[in-house]
Amino acid sequence: MAHVKHQKWWGWGEEGVFFDYQNKPAFAPFVKNAIGVSLRPRERDTVDFATARVPASTASEDVLTVLRGISGAEHVSVDDELRIVHWAGKSVLELMQTLRNDFARVPDAVVYPGSEDEVTAILTAAVEHDLVVIPFGGGSSISRSLQAEADETRCIVSVDMGRLNKVLEIDETSGLATIQAGVLGPDMEEQLNARGWTLGHFPDSFAHSTLGGWAATRSSGMQSDKYGDIADIVRGLRMVRPSGTVVLRSLPSTSTGPSLREMIIGSEGRLGIITELTVQVHRLPQEHEVIAYMFPTWQQALTAVRQYTEAEIPLTFARVSDAHETAFSLATQKAATSVKGKLAAKGQDALWAVMRKRGWDTDAMCISYVCFEGTPKDVAERKKAVAKIAKAQGAVVLGSGPGALYDQKKFDTPHLRDFLLEQNTVGDVSETAAPWSRLTTVHKAAYDAAQRAYERIGKTGWIMSHMSHSYHSGACLYFTFAYVFDDEKPYEEYEIVKSAIQQSFVDSGATLSHHHGVGVEHQPWMEQDVSPEGVALMKGLFHAADPGTNFNPGKIVS
Amino acid sequence: MAHVKHQKWWGWGEEGVFFDYQNKPAFAPFVKNAIGVSLRPRERDTVDFATARVPASTASEDVLTVLRGISGAEHVSVDDELRIVHWAGKSVLELMQTLRNDFARVPDAVVYPGSEDEVTAILTAAVEHDLVVIPFGGGSSISRSLQAEADETRCIVSVDMGRLNKVLEIDETSGLATIQAGVLGPDMEEQLNARGWTLGHFPDSFAHSTLGGWAATRSSGMQSDKYGDIADIVRGLRMVRPSGTVVLRSLPSTSTGPSLREMIIGSEGRLGIITELTVQVHRLPQEHEVIAYMFPTWQQALTAVRQYTEAEIPLTFARVSDAHETAFSLATQKAATSVKGKLAAKGQDALWAVMRKRGWDTDAMCISYVCFEGTPKDVAERKKAVAKIAKAQGAVVLGSGPGALYDQKKFDTPHLRDFLLEQNTVGDVSETAAPWSRLTTVHKAAYDAAQRAYERIGKTGWIMSHMSHSYHSGACLYFTFAYVFDDEKPYEEYEIVKSAIQQSFVDSGATLSHHHGVGVEHQPWMEQDVSPEGVALMKGLFHAADPGTNFNPGKIVS
Repeated sequence: MAHVKHQKWWGWGEEGVFFDYQNKPAFAPFVKNAIGVSLRPRERDTVDFATARVPASTASEDVLTVLRGISGAEHVSVDDELRIVHWAGKSVLELMQTLRNDFARVPDAVVYPGSEDEVTAILTAAVEHDLVVIPFGGGSSISRSLQAEADETRCIVSVDMGRLNKVLEIDETSGLATIQAGVLGPDMEEQLNARGWTLGHFPDSFAHSTLGGWAATRSSGMQSDKYGDIADIVRGLRMVRPSGTVVLRSLPSTSTGPSLREMIIGSEGRLGIITELTVQVHRLPQEHEVIAYMFPTWQQALTAVRQYTEAEIPLTFARVSDAHETAFSLATQKAATSVKGKLAAKGQDALWAVMRKRGWDTDAMCISYVCFEGTPKDVAERKKAVAKIAKAQGAVVLGSGPGALYDQKKFDTPHLRDFLLEQNTVGDVSETAAPWSRLTTVHKAAYDAAQRAYERIGKTGWIMSHMSHSYHSGACLYFTFAYVFDDEKPYEEYEIVKSAIQQSFVDSGATLSHHHGVGVEHQPWMEQDVSPEGVALMKGLFHAADPGTNFNPGKIVS
Repeated sequence: MAHVKHQKWWGWGEEGVFFDYQNKPAFAPFVKNAIGVSLRPRERDTVDFATARVPASTASEDVLTVLRGISGAEHVSVDDELRIVHWAGKSVLELMQTLRNDFARVPDAVVYPGSEDEVTAILTAAVEHDLVVIPFGGGSSISRSLQAEADETRCIVSVDMGRLNKVLEIDETSGLATIQAGVLGPDMEEQLNARGWTLGHFPDSFAHSTLGGWAATRSSGMQSDKYGDIADIVRGLRMVRPSGTVVLRSLPSTSTGPSLREMIIGSEGRLGIITELTVQVHRLPQEHEVIAYMFPTWQQALTAVRQYTEAEIPLTFARVSDAHETAFSLATQKAATSVKGKLAAKGQDALWAVMRKRGWDTDAMCISYVCFEGTPKDVAERKKAVAKIAKAQGAVVLGSGPGALYDQKKFDTPHLRDFLLEQNTVGDVSETAAPWSRLTTVHKAAYDAAQRAYERIGKTGWIMSHMSHSYHSGACLYFTFAYVFDDEKPYEEYEIVKSAIQQSFVDSGATLSHHHGVGVEHQPWMEQDVSPEGVALMKGLFHAADPGTNFNPGKIVS
């Protein structure tokens, strides 16, 4: 097991990696202004596991003997820290629960299968012994897809897929790779890159999530505009069930009834365990460049991105931060230490001055990043086409400096949540998608809903947003919100704020989630999103596939 | 009902429209050479319905009263000709059965609902009275998705969706249109075109198939490389069930568990009846041009198309005919009558001479058509990029003349089947998809399988193919085969030939169908294609959704 990487038991990422604001001079004043908190320096480098009060494992010797017989004694654990690592994902609610010792049902055992046959044997045993089986990839879920039901009385087994982490084959003619489900993002890219290929799938969780997890939760990455959402990327797969393995051969497209591929993608462990996937891979692009643009207003920035898609300019991503997020982004810039950095900072001040002179309301400005990939000629042409549209919407092209910065720090954001929790502050995210015609409404509704929720809990709260993915008919809006929580009722407050934002999505014609999955967190909105009859159809599928409710019970619909 | 268009009861398309070879001087010699048939001039302009021996309707007065109560007496019919129009699709097997009076179970009544509420009432009645309900769009299925099971003892109701044929709304900002399911292709495009939009979905069946039918059978169109398969195009939908309506709001992408949208697409009536769809629409392109290229060999042509996708050149389609189909295509050219036509024919002869001089084997040549759409600048640039790749694979650019010809006659092919049947000849199609690396194997395997089947039935048969759709990881191969059938055992021979080709697909890693659906025709290969466990999962879904098996029983899996 030693070679399976795990995140901190109490927070995001690996021990020793943190968010730090000491080198970001504008950050503390920004937070003070936004939510009224005077930040203290980080004190928590780690949390001693001795402080954790872990409910005892209820795994019987019989069950452990069976599991050891399948995967070997060295790959079955009842160790308390490993059980806690596997007890939940990394949603803010789960992090709060973990830090407060509010453990409900913790897995009674963790098993690390080393082959598909072992996974089959585990699922067969699960049915035979009426165990609950929860597949575990990188443990990065923020929708509570990994947490067992609090009132679960059966023995719970977390099936950690981390040993199944190899790129098995690359079909270079077809641009397809066959890869085991348990591979973490960086390990997979390393194996692909070594042969000149990339999957192009980079969710915020990239470093701590797995290919199988992405498929099981309908993930999207930062570059999905070009490479596709995971449902586009996955062409074939193997999913183990107690009665056999669903084998979907890799096909560019097929007309074989309801799509089994699309039933399994997003199924969050409720139909079985995905062991292997055949995915589209791409040659590493010759060039990769991120250019920043500043727009006078949110509306103009959205219009520009919609026009990029209308003009069918092939972009790797086109991201727009709203005015709040633009301000936040500027506040998290590191202090300029190099001569070049200082010059850049001076240049930025000058730019702001120019914009004010142009009559811009600098509080309304929205920064946008567009990523271009391809041959030098492709990149040059597309940059020109984008600049033309952006400028027609009043944008100023800031160039590649801020873009490169974005590319460097893109995976850092989740660490911020742990830092804020130490300051008794919730920082969390909620994301959605809607047709272009509804985006402004959805955006405003989420802001209004958050504001009302903050008033209800009597707090000064913050909300900001960016548009992260665009499609022919619409886009994804990604919101980040923050407020100081009350130690006496952290869960109640969280429920009020998060629910208000989620409710505003479905009420304004948007979806409960564009790419974070459902889990337990988003389940209350399933009927409103896909209709009661849609939920009934899905329940029928789950019940038929898992009559004993042994596979990750309670997720998506219950 | 009068305003619902129907196809010939005995053949493809509308009465009075036929395939004619009289103006195609090379056609008869070609057919003689290929399958040994001396063509006779067409004698059959129509078939007298008086020759049909139609099994009597078994619909009880009770059931008819219920249906009349729902949709009005004028929208419920037990008329024999209408029942025969609705008894089957237009597969060659069904056409043969129809012409030979081999009717098994014919719908006992046809109902034309005028609203979604009526559809709900019909389905509720179906469950209450244990009726079999078969939704009917344009009746163009060639996978036997519309034919009732031969041993069905319950009353069968064909639900013709033809009155639900309106474009309800266009969201011009989002490029989305909400359209009723029963609209025929041309009627829909007319409504969309009038406002400057197009769906861009043009299956061979376009004139005689409906939007709802396309969704229910996972259709692709000739321009799907650009506009997407129907599963990409459909963003939202409504599907009626007896217990309520599944309402999926229009979303560019969503992460709400297994995809209900992708479960309903391809469901061929087994989950309920689709009444309304929200689909991606596009502005009519400024330019639309089809250019023809001649390649020395099939392999070089395939490589070129793969390289177009690798280079991510946005094409509307890139089609390649193999050597056999290229020869066929040349044989179906009309005799040149105009001066321009005669010059073109002379030019063609000269071109052939040039190619022979270059050392080409003119029997191996493959014609390819590529369609470009966009601004004049887009079209010019993409043509240049395609020509560069094509030429590197040895191609000669033939220009837009043959391309325009292709665009004009693209919907004519299905009529050929009726003409051939009159000549005791089966002409039919079988199509598949596979990764790029397997295409040559799949192509050869289908040829070999057909040849062996022809030997088995003791006939001289023909097979030809084109690559019709391309994707990042693979493509669709579309085969046409022909042989003279024996009047004593037409079904047995057909079964041998068609099955051999289908079996060769799945044996060589390709799918049983890329876009014709499953129905009954392709059902024998479901377990081999999606694995026994995949079929079991699908059966579980169908059984849960329709415990009484009232909705198009026996289709896809049984």
